[in-house]
Amino acid sequence: MISRLVNAIEEKHSPIVVGLDPTLQLIPPQILESSFAQYGQTLEAAADAIFVFNKELVDAVRDLVPAFKPQIAMYEQFGVPGVAAFAKTVAYCHEKGTLVLGDVKRGDIGSTSEAYAKAHIGTIRIGEQEFAPFGEDFMTVNPYFGIDGIKPFTDVCKSHGKGIFVLVKTSNPSGGEFQDRLVDGRPLYELVGEHVADWGKDVMDGEYSEVGAVVGATYPEEGARMREVMPHALILVPGYGAQGASGKDLAPFFHPGGRGAIVNSSRGIIGAWKKEEYKAFGAERFGEAARAAVLSMREDLNANIS
Amino acid sequence: MISRLVNAIEEKHSPIVVGLDPTLQLIPPQILESSFAQYGQTLEAAADAIFVFNKELVDAVRDLVPAFKPQIAMYEQFGVPGVAAFAKTVAYCHEKGTLVLGDVKRGDIGSTSEAYAKAHIGTIRIGEQEFAPFGEDFMTVNPYFGIDGIKPFTDVCKSHGKGIFVLVKTSNPSGGEFQDRLVDGRPLYELVGEHVADWGKDVMDGEYSEVGAVVGATYPEEGARMREVMPHALILVPGYGAQGASGKDLAPFFHPGGRGAIVNSSRGIIGAWKKEEYKAFGAERFGEAARAAVLSMREDLNANIS
Repeated sequence: MISRLVNAIEEKHSPIVVGLDPTLQLIPPQILESSFAQYGQTLEAAADAIFVFNKELVDAVRDLVPAFKPQIAMYEQFGVPGVAAFAKTVAYCHEKGTLVLGDVKRGDIGSTSEAYAKAHIGTIRIGEQEFAPFGEDFMTVNPYFGIDGIKPFTDVCKSHGKGIFVLVKTSNPSGGEFQDRLVDGRPLYELVGEHVADWGKDVMDGEYSEVGAVVGATYPEEGARMREVMPHALILVPGYGAQGASGKDLAPFFHPGGRGAIVNSSRGIIGAWKKEEYKAFGAERFGEAARAAVLSMREDLNANIS
Repeated sequence: MISRLVNAIEEKHSPIVVGLDPTLQLIPPQILESSFAQYGQTLEAAADAIFVFNKELVDAVRDLVPAFKPQIAMYEQFGVPGVAAFAKTVAYCHEKGTLVLGDVKRGDIGSTSEAYAKAHIGTIRIGEQEFAPFGEDFMTVNPYFGIDGIKPFTDVCKSHGKGIFVLVKTSNPSGGEFQDRLVDGRPLYELVGEHVADWGKDVMDGEYSEVGAVVGATYPEEGARMREVMPHALILVPGYGAQGASGKDLAPFFHPGGRGAIVNSSRGIIGAWKKEEYKAFGAERFGEAARAAVLSMREDLNANIS
């Protein structure tokens, strides 16, 4: 699966994944009003509004980007109807021919990780039937449990041709509280990165491994080091835009030729219509505002990586 | 909320939480057949079977234990219908007056952790209405992001009178791969434990804090040390039974008087009807088999802690 993502990035000259992380604050009033009119002030209304919002965003920018990344927390907060909207969003992206990275950050002991792997990137058998419950192409994974919490995911990567991104160095301010602590002379995240490189050796798909890594854009020096430590891992880089990083911070995450990383932006794109810069579009044309924001981000990235 | 759990443990002389971690293999054939007859070989059938199974288990043992712990991965693997069965299980436990610990192991950057906290132990506002989307009393949390990934959870503990259990030392064989690495002379899990003690200071509810910790039963020496490091954290101890630990391994996790910890068993109880020891009950009487397994576990624990 990672080769499909790498190829799509190259075809579109666009190492960008759009985060579909809806909150009610980011959804234009005309969508909310329509969903409330239909479903009342309910979780179902919120879920409906999210899905309508997502569809228009996907339609507006899918020719410009290789993949979308719904953050499942933003759906879980609307309960079962929210989780259903997550599943429908994954299916809609696939209908439209784009890849989906489920940002779910799951991870547990082996038997439990196996269930999460089936849920998100694998399949489950019920009697004679086989189902892909959520059916993402990639998912994010938490490494705290070590290899036996990771192996069920890499097994499914192999059997189903899917990919994962393991948290290495997160983009948040306190990411270093544990991740930066020195273990045998180098920070914990670097030790995790060494393991990611190792776990991924057996699951290569072209130039890169199905086992990628998450390294926050807010830490460019660490990004440069991790680029060396994990030569075959595609790096998923959150933290662009709303979290503070810009194009010039991102070169260290890439291989020469602009390969090897994909940068996420969520609020900066899906909430573009609320930003001063794009407010001329108005709430009705939020899709066009998102498109303008993607074009601007693509320009910023391509000017800074090569 | 933690004082309610502590009191319920004492009233029932039972520091036991029953893990509701259903797999199709653990569900008796008469339930599966009925669900398949009604819904076909579908995710809906699996979800229906899980819920029927859970209800009978809850009815069979709820007078003996203070709480149930559904592991959400086992529901997510059945997609949206599975997640709906998780929500219904939480609601059913509450109808029957027992506490629920959502074993969800969520954790992310601040804004995302906030959404997970709302989803599982908090509430979300939609227009004038407020909803508790999944409505657990407690949830498990992953510490990898540090304090700004934890604070949204402790904030909700404060505002909504709920509790969390933070992963410190997990029960799986490779738990030590990162958790045991030395940081300034002590293992990483101990550093995490120090932080748990610190994060919990501000959220006390009686003798214990709303911020508890997960420490695997398979590591009794580490349990003794963590009992000292986190004097006000209730310790959730997985790994009893199927994962290999028994009553004699558990004393170190407790305070004198048998307080301060709660031990989980999942497969050993909900799958008791399939074990040699309890097979005389037969598949039809799986609830009674589960009850016998709880009574045996309670005896084992109470003989070894004091």
